[in-house]
Amino acid sequence: MTFERRIFNFSAGPSTVPEEVLKQAQAELLNWHGLGTSVMEISHRSKDFMAVYEEVLHDLRTLMNIPDSYEILLLQGGGIGQNAGIPMNLMALGKNGPKADFLVTGIWSEKSRQEAEKYGVAHLVASSATEQFNTIPARDSWDLSDDAAYLHYCSNETIGGVEFPDTPEVGDRLLVADISSNILSKEMDISKGAVWFGGAQKNIGPSGVTIVVVRKDLLGHSMKITPSIWDWGKQAANQSMVNTPPTFSIYMAGLGFKWLLKQGGVKVIEQRNQEKANLLYDFIDQSTLYENRVNKVYRSRMNATFFLRDESLNDAFLSQSKAAGLLALRGHKAAGGMRASIYNAMPLEGVIALVEFMRDFERRA
Amino acid sequence: MTFERRIFNFSAGPSTVPEEVLKQAQAELLNWHGLGTSVMEISHRSKDFMAVYEEVLHDLRTLMNIPDSYEILLLQGGGIGQNAGIPMNLMALGKNGPKADFLVTGIWSEKSRQEAEKYGVAHLVASSATEQFNTIPARDSWDLSDDAAYLHYCSNETIGGVEFPDTPEVGDRLLVADISSNILSKEMDISKGAVWFGGAQKNIGPSGVTIVVVRKDLLGHSMKITPSIWDWGKQAANQSMVNTPPTFSIYMAGLGFKWLLKQGGVKVIEQRNQEKANLLYDFIDQSTLYENRVNKVYRSRMNATFFLRDESLNDAFLSQSKAAGLLALRGHKAAGGMRASIYNAMPLEGVIALVEFMRDFERRA
Repeated sequence: MTFERRIFNFSAGPSTVPEEVLKQAQAELLNWHGLGTSVMEISHRSKDFMAVYEEVLHDLRTLMNIPDSYEILLLQGGGIGQNAGIPMNLMALGKNGPKADFLVTGIWSEKSRQEAEKYGVAHLVASSATEQFNTIPARDSWDLSDDAAYLHYCSNETIGGVEFPDTPEVGDRLLVADISSNILSKEMDISKGAVWFGGAQKNIGPSGVTIVVVRKDLLGHSMKITPSIWDWGKQAANQSMVNTPPTFSIYMAGLGFKWLLKQGGVKVIEQRNQEKANLLYDFIDQSTLYENRVNKVYRSRMNATFFLRDESLNDAFLSQSKAAGLLALRGHKAAGGMRASIYNAMPLEGVIALVEFMRDFERRA
Repeated sequence: MTFERRIFNFSAGPSTVPEEVLKQAQAELLNWHGLGTSVMEISHRSKDFMAVYEEVLHDLRTLMNIPDSYEILLLQGGGIGQNAGIPMNLMALGKNGPKADFLVTGIWSEKSRQEAEKYGVAHLVASSATEQFNTIPARDSWDLSDDAAYLHYCSNETIGGVEFPDTPEVGDRLLVADISSNILSKEMDISKGAVWFGGAQKNIGPSGVTIVVVRKDLLGHSMKITPSIWDWGKQAANQSMVNTPPTFSIYMAGLGFKWLLKQGGVKVIEQRNQEKANLLYDFIDQSTLYENRVNKVYRSRMNATFFLRDESLNDAFLSQSKAAGLLALRGHKAAGGMRASIYNAMPLEGVIALVEFMRDFERRA
């Protein structure tokens, strides 16, 4: 099946990019800023690329309202890379040896916990595994350690479709937030966390660059075994260029930031995201064919998971939705069912088209 | 200064990409293969992207003539990332504990040696530091260990402009080759090495993806502290998708491989590279203004370093060459002088234009 036009792509990541961002990248792909060369062909250390890099940091700092006391690093290896990078940089701060606390609300946070076990004690604070990760463990059930270096949590679980409505309150403990799938989707008070990290491939742009926002006073505590490219202190001192950065991905992230600023910033996109999510969940809730199984309070605004009560219709749903120009609605294989990822770059029209298709499919079913 | 047309870009990396590769990427940037979406927006696990991935591996295997007994991994973190990744995966094979041998012929191989010290003994076999890295230590001066897991060397030192004419003969020792800056530039007998690795940003495409070619029987020896995304055995079992891969960089590498196949493959490009290098070095050697300081036997065909005997002319040389559409000729700050990186994608016309400019500049000097 081929399309002449752009369709609506609900992929969980890599995911849809605003059309005007792609158009700008396309227009200047061979000759960027009149330099006679593509932005992807120039040295990362050149004056021209350094200007891109500085602007990317500036725009991200503005969008996320990041205080000056936080460093912004642009790294490689994704969130899963930082699952190792974070303990290597911070776990040594544990009072009685390397240790960190993990709040497990889905497959991603459990993955983070397991990776950290390579570097110290990765203590399980609480888990919603027995509830099929359809909720978040109640605050009073959390078994927080007194000697852990930090508490790690995942603010939005992409697979289960579970999201923290607010940043957890943990007093003066260091909080590490995996915001891979809801970064820039809503306002977050950066001062409440020690580290905020995530890959670009969901709410920002193409895959390849990983953002780490870290409180500056926490730099310089890396274990000896930390690879140079993930040594936050070293990278902070070298403008994240200890190794050759993924320059095109950074440039694309920058175009994404400009687009978001033009939309009115995070506050505006947050309202739009809420509107999109409400539209989809309200439809699902009144349907007799579809159901969402997540505790309503913790439903993700980014990844709406749903099931067809008659699962024998799954294949028909997927093939017909694709034919209708609604791409990538299959749920993660670990969860089954369906999933519509509706990140910042998904226009309201996409969600309207999805709901219309779902309503029509239900009528015909 | 702005250019209406494409210029010749001698950047050491990220570096020039063939114009027809950029044109294809541009044409299909918004709607790839009639899918109604960009290749950078689709899931790495989708059927469509997996087809790209398989073709990239197939074409690279063809171009480099990689035997089936070798795995090809597409990772993140660049060569500097693998400076940690390699010891974590192989150093434990040392007979008396983690140990590896390092042949130091420039800044890159010394950097590799220092990073490896985090994981075990990084023994210096020989170094050309006292010769300002202008040569390669004589084979009979190498102090090889009997208990090292492997011998690491850098086949082309990008900064010094020093290249091994052939793969070193090391008997049944495991040889690890950093081919970041001459990968695919000439025929290499893969069976002579245990590991061949390098970033894409010199002879392949944009930065962001790292190629590791490793003998399959060497998988599975990683240290416990190895991050999952660099655990070669784990990545081999997961099609290099333990983490979200840099999909657009992989796609661009694939376009680069297709371009190279169309040129006639590595054998043809090797002749062209030799021709380009000869043209430039022959001119430098007959000049009274320019000089190359590298032992003639070991001059790099990829990175031609040269100095103006009158260094007060450096600034004029750089500004005038840029105005003439010859970009990025400044040498690395650790080496000084000038450097023309003439990778696969640099056409002969670019080197001719450079020599003409240099001749003209010399006449006017």
